[in-house]
Amino acid sequence: MIIREKDNWLRLLFVWQGSVLPQILPRLLVLLGLSVVVVYAHGTLLYYKVPLNAAPFTLFGVTLAIFLGFYNNASYDRFWEGRKLWGALLNTTRSLARQALTLSSRAESAPEIHYFVRLLIAFTYALKHQLRRTDPAADLGRLLPANLALSIQSATFKPVMLLLEMGRWVQQNQVAAHLDTTTQLAFDHNFNQLSDIVGGCERLAGTPIPYTYSVMLHRTVYFYCFLLPFGLVDSIGWMTPVIVAFVGYTFMALDAIVRDLEEPFGLGANDLALNTMSHMIESTLLEMIGEKAPATPERKSRYVFD
Amino acid sequence: MIIREKDNWLRLLFVWQGSVLPQILPRLLVLLGLSVVVVYAHGTLLYYKVPLNAAPFTLFGVTLAIFLGFYNNASYDRFWEGRKLWGALLNTTRSLARQALTLSSRAESAPEIHYFVRLLIAFTYALKHQLRRTDPAADLGRLLPANLALSIQSATFKPVMLLLEMGRWVQQNQVAAHLDTTTQLAFDHNFNQLSDIVGGCERLAGTPIPYTYSVMLHRTVYFYCFLLPFGLVDSIGWMTPVIVAFVGYTFMALDAIVRDLEEPFGLGANDLALNTMSHMIESTLLEMIGEKAPATPERKSRYVFD
Amino acid sequence: MIIREKDNWLRLLFVWQGSVLPQILPRLLVLLGLSVVVVYAHGTLLYYKVPLNAAPFTLFGVTLAIFLGFYNNASYDRFWEGRKLWGALLNTTRSLARQALTLSSRAESAPEIHYFVRLLIAFTYALKHQLRRTDPAADLGRLLPANLALSIQSATFKPVMLLLEMGRWVQQNQVAAHLDTTTQLAFDHNFNQLSDIVGGCERLAGTPIPYTYSVMLHRTVYFYCFLLPFGLVDSIGWMTPVIVAFVGYTFMALDAIVRDLEEPFGLGANDLALNTMSHMIESTLLEMIGEKAPATPERKSRYVFD
Amino acid sequence: MIIREKDNWLRLLFVWQGSVLPQILPRLLVLLGLSVVVVYAHGTLLYYKVPLNAAPFTLFGVTLAIFLGFYNNASYDRFWEGRKLWGALLNTTRSLARQALTLSSRAESAPEIHYFVRLLIAFTYALKHQLRRTDPAADLGRLLPANLALSIQSATFKPVMLLLEMGRWVQQNQVAAHLDTTTQLAFDHNFNQLSDIVGGCERLAGTPIPYTYSVMLHRTVYFYCFLLPFGLVDSIGWMTPVIVAFVGYTFMALDAIVRDLEEPFGLGANDLALNTMSHMIESTLLEMIGEKAPATPERKSRYVFD
Amino acid sequence: MIIREKDNWLRLLFVWQGSVLPQILPRLLVLLGLSVVVVYAHGTLLYYKVPLNAAPFTLFGVTLAIFLGFYNNASYDRFWEGRKLWGALLNTTRSLARQALTLSSRAESAPEIHYFVRLLIAFTYALKHQLRRTDPAADLGRLLPANLALSIQSATFKPVMLLLEMGRWVQQNQVAAHLDTTTQLAFDHNFNQLSDIVGGCERLAGTPIPYTYSVMLHRTVYFYCFLLPFGLVDSIGWMTPVIVAFVGYTFMALDAIVRDLEEPFGLGANDLALNTMSHMIESTLLEMIGEKAPATPERKSRYVFD
Repeated sequence: MIIREKDNWLRLLFVWQGSVLPQILPRLLVLLGLSVVVVYAHGTLLYYKVPLNAAPFTLFGVTLAIFLGFYNNASYDRFWEGRKLWGALLNTTRSLARQALTLSSRAESAPEIHYFVRLLIAFTYALKHQLRRTDPAADLGRLLPANLALSIQSATFKPVMLLLEMGRWVQQNQVAAHLDTTTQLAFDHNFNQLSDIVGGCERLAGTPIPYTYSVMLHRTVYFYCFLLPFGLVDSIGWMTPVIVAFVGYTFMALDAIVRDLEEPFGLGANDLALNTMSHMIESTLLEMIGEKAPATPERKSRYVFD
Repeated sequence: MIIREKDNWLRLLFVWQGSVLPQILPRLLVLLGLSVVVVYAHGTLLYYKVPLNAAPFTLFGVTLAIFLGFYNNASYDRFWEGRKLWGALLNTTRSLARQALTLSSRAESAPEIHYFVRLLIAFTYALKHQLRRTDPAADLGRLLPANLALSIQSATFKPVMLLLEMGRWVQQNQVAAHLDTTTQLAFDHNFNQLSDIVGGCERLAGTPIPYTYSVMLHRTVYFYCFLLPFGLVDSIGWMTPVIVAFVGYTFMALDAIVRDLEEPFGLGANDLALNTMSHMIESTLLEMIGEKAPATPERKSRYVFD
Repeated sequence: MIIREKDNWLRLLFVWQGSVLPQILPRLLVLLGLSVVVVYAHGTLLYYKVPLNAAPFTLFGVTLAIFLGFYNNASYDRFWEGRKLWGALLNTTRSLARQALTLSSRAESAPEIHYFVRLLIAFTYALKHQLRRTDPAADLGRLLPANLALSIQSATFKPVMLLLEMGRWVQQNQVAAHLDTTTQLAFDHNFNQLSDIVGGCERLAGTPIPYTYSVMLHRTVYFYCFLLPFGLVDSIGWMTPVIVAFVGYTFMALDAIVRDLEEPFGLGANDLALNTMSHMIESTLLEMIGEKAPATPERKSRYVFD
Repeated sequence: MIIREKDNWLRLLFVWQGSVLPQILPRLLVLLGLSVVVVYAHGTLLYYKVPLNAAPFTLFGVTLAIFLGFYNNASYDRFWEGRKLWGALLNTTRSLARQALTLSSRAESAPEIHYFVRLLIAFTYALKHQLRRTDPAADLGRLLPANLALSIQSATFKPVMLLLEMGRWVQQNQVAAHLDTTTQLAFDHNFNQLSDIVGGCERLAGTPIPYTYSVMLHRTVYFYCFLLPFGLVDSIGWMTPVIVAFVGYTFMALDAIVRDLEEPFGLGANDLALNTMSHMIESTLLEMIGEKAPATPERKSRYVFD
Repeated sequence: MIIREKDNWLRLLFVWQGSVLPQILPRLLVLLGLSVVVVYAHGTLLYYKVPLNAAPFTLFGVTLAIFLGFYNNASYDRFWEGRKLWGALLNTTRSLARQALTLSSRAESAPEIHYFVRLLIAFTYALKHQLRRTDPAADLGRLLPANLALSIQSATFKPVMLLLEMGRWVQQNQVAAHLDTTTQLAFDHNFNQLSDIVGGCERLAGTPIPYTYSVMLHRTVYFYCFLLPFGLVDSIGWMTPVIVAFVGYTFMALDAIVRDLEEPFGLGANDLALNTMSHMIESTLLEMIGEKAPATPERKSRYVFD
């Protein structure tokens, strides 16, 4: 996602990155061209005057407002829910690390504790790779013992199997009397949270906004935009292309943003910065067990986090 | 539900599946026919000129916006709540499987553990069949011991009786000292969740949006659409059928989508893919106990999951 | 509430039950009569021409949209919250029945267990009667031992006293060593839920939407409707009564629906079917303890559940 | 707050109490006077004709709808959250009373139990007085032992200190072996709830809707209302004062209601009836320990609860 | 943030502080100047008459309403969520202080208890400084033992390390038999809450509303405002500058407010008063352990809390 300091109000009018213009420029030029032609031909299409005025567009306004307003809110809610799930992931892994450090009778520096924290980090990366459909082998290999990395790699639902592994770790500690069943419950409570987080992410990734909305919104926006020049030309003449292009820009841009936000785990400019967040979770967990954080990965752009 | 990759913006204008057109085509053709007749007769109906212009339709806009906006949001909320409930079902059954595997002193491969996981899967299918009013006998027979399958089959509220069976399983393990009452509470917490999920689904399935809204929305939409040609013909002439047909298309399509979403557990094109989700829950639970997932059921259409 | 299968789109235009028409017909006829008079007199009222056009009504549209939109959403939220509370009641009583059956060391068929489940059913009916201000004596007498029924009947907050009785039951079992304090907590957690449900219902029943909104909405709707004929007569002539009557119908109908939904525990056609739900809770709880469900009570209308 | 039975639709048009008219009458008369003058002078202000029509007011409509809609929703949400917090207070104090009665090994009639319930009632009154900035001395003195009443009276955050006192009570019972640490946790859970309730009320009382909204809404409403006569006089002549006064009435009334709702713990006609609610909590808690409820306090008005 | 008593309706029209005018005055003067020039030149720009009327602005209204309405709601939700998080911080630190005082077997006046409460206060300040990117050294030094202050100061995620320290404190008390593992869980539950609060604040601070919205809203507002004079001049003549300036004022002010609210932890006039809230948390926690509250810090302005 794009993170910039608040620009001056004047500069904000002319920024390029984050304006969606690159993405919709071709369509917008087509629309602009059409408007110019319509003005030049005084609204005549193949010798027939197209009889339109602004009134029908006010009627369209109702549908457009409903479709755009709904789609926009629903998409943003998905984006924000995705962000909340990854926020909860941060909170819960921190809580589990704290529990591992302070609820068992093992010393904080015991290798078992460090192993558990590494399980948490591997869980985070496994979830990220599942959501982005990338290969987690490198991260799993880096964080887990070889045989466990292999077995997780071969699983379909990797984060779930890692969660099960954490459950086994707690059980072994309970059997070894490093914690009792009361304490085990405290871990279990947070494991339930992690299970909810995984399932929540899978829900967002697997269930888009019903496809029909997408079709209807798209059609309404483009029908509206390409009829608009005929409706305005009689009353505002050569200003038509200016107005049509700007109206078209706002509608098409909104249409484009919401498609980005609808799938918050993708790689679009407005999608969540899962890489940055995974790295941040790794840093904070390692700090808790007194290890050094890994180096920040390089980024391609100054403002865009992926 | 329909799941497609994001289409190119141009192709999205012409897709057929998911456009609701098949469903509303007859009414739309009637409306188009009427518009053409109105244009041909210059807005005269049986020798009387119908005196209408665009102004009253702006007034209707307020009611329409309220009815459509409300119905749309309420329906989508129901759809999304249904999806969240099935997401919670996935999360909670996974958590219970993890608890069965790591909170009791039984070995992970013990047949009692596998039996419990099968109870969870049967619970999922029983809920699906209850919501769709289909016969669960085949799935219950496949997953449960014969006598239990029979007794569940004869119950009215099948998932609730399966939940009770799970409670009995935990109690037997507690009596046999495989877990203590503290651990029993951890299971019980998730049983409460399952109870909430069953009840939540029953609530959505049994309580529609108040019927009166449905009547009012429907009437407003059709009254509006069938008067519209008379209101536009004087100012936009032969463009009337184009505009009326498109406005009618968007309103009727929205009216049709929301009726689909309102009952998210049905079999409409926009309804939840309960079959796919049940199968997915079965796969992930079986993976946790090291068994092979069942084969994916065949689908009739490439894009539509049921 | 009214529960009907989805009608054909054409029949939906002409249904009578659930259309609110019976309720608002007199006012609507007055409005229609006024419109006809206004058309006949060409907008003149007692020799004075009333100078109005459609423009002011567009301005009113803003206020109306805010009042109607807000009131509608707030009322529906109350309706849906009421439904959720009764859904939670179903879930929690089922959970408590399951706990009574599987968390104590008593046999499932012990009379103490059946007594506890009857307490849950009595709690449900007591809440229903409190919300509808009807006499619970018959239901309490049917479900509880005579002396308990008497003492509950004399209490002001009956469900709360029944909840206290359940707490006593758990304590007696704990003292008799049929469950330990850990298990007692599991019951206590659900008792807290029941307490929240009772309080939530009392909140909805006791705190309406602020009265001033009701007054303002009402005045705006009627002022708008009765001025509308004067604003339209000059431009749409004899179509005025048609348009005014339909606009009036939608506004007055919405005004009437929201008054129904605002108090979801009442006996209006759109209110919650508390009788049906209480009966359903009784059935599912009795099924859990292996008893036969009571006969379904007769209904007056085919579609209306009360 | 005002609680009335649903009036007949006709009477609702003419009620005085709850119509906000008393509050805004002077401003409304000023606006009406201005409109009459404008009509008389044909829109001329000091020899200059003010050139306005309805179009700019449609543009204002967008801002007004956003400001009014937002402010209205935000205020009502605050009102309703305040109500929910007091509802939660009722639920949680009832739960704590039930726990005191059934989770400890003391007899229900023991003076220690009655003392604890009185702490709960005192907590309720202390919160009410804190929110309304009134003196709790009388209520504290009535409910608590003299020395505790004194020490609470001298504290800044009185409900918090009472909560601490409840914590001490539970600890003393645990030390005296009337309950174990598991049971102590059940109380502690509800103490956390009470802490959330106190903090939630303090949040609502201490953090208004950002002041700037208030300024902007106010300015837009009054600028709009006082320009409106000039915009309408040319097209609707002597109907101008009627329309302007009614539009002004709805906008100013909405502006006035939301200011009331914004601070739900105040003493305005639409604010929460904290006195009635405190009294109700006291009644239900006393009923649980078998004591008589106090007499209902007298009210000044038939419909207004404070 | 600005906290003022409710002003008289007349004074509210003329307040300066909180009106956003200082911030947007230059742009507003530019807009006013342009309007005057347009009126003087009768809508002619460099000898060309700009052919515009009010109709296209009605079309823009739809987009503007969606962008402004959405951005406004999203920003206010962030503001209010930030406030809720700090409210939860107050509630949870109070709960933890109560637990430290009443759940362990240590005397209330034991230095260990006071040390724990100081950890809670340091946690609050550490979070405040992290969110505002200020140096916490002074506050940490004042509240913590020197070596702990040093080690926290060197950490990246300071509040998290303080939370870990609290976990260690509880563990030490459990090892020393001042509390058992059941009681430890009660603390742990609230530590999870604190972890959620820290993560929630980091989420709000680190993830702005997608940048593209900001760009689009800004462009639409300014494009609209600077074209408006051309659209109005033909119909309302010399009233154009008055209307344009006021419309511009409301749009630009809204644009400015939402930028403030979007980052609720900043130092803008409408941002949260973190200093005041931290001080309040310190006071209430110190009161609980019988210590004197620190002096209230001085403020620069009478109405603005920072």
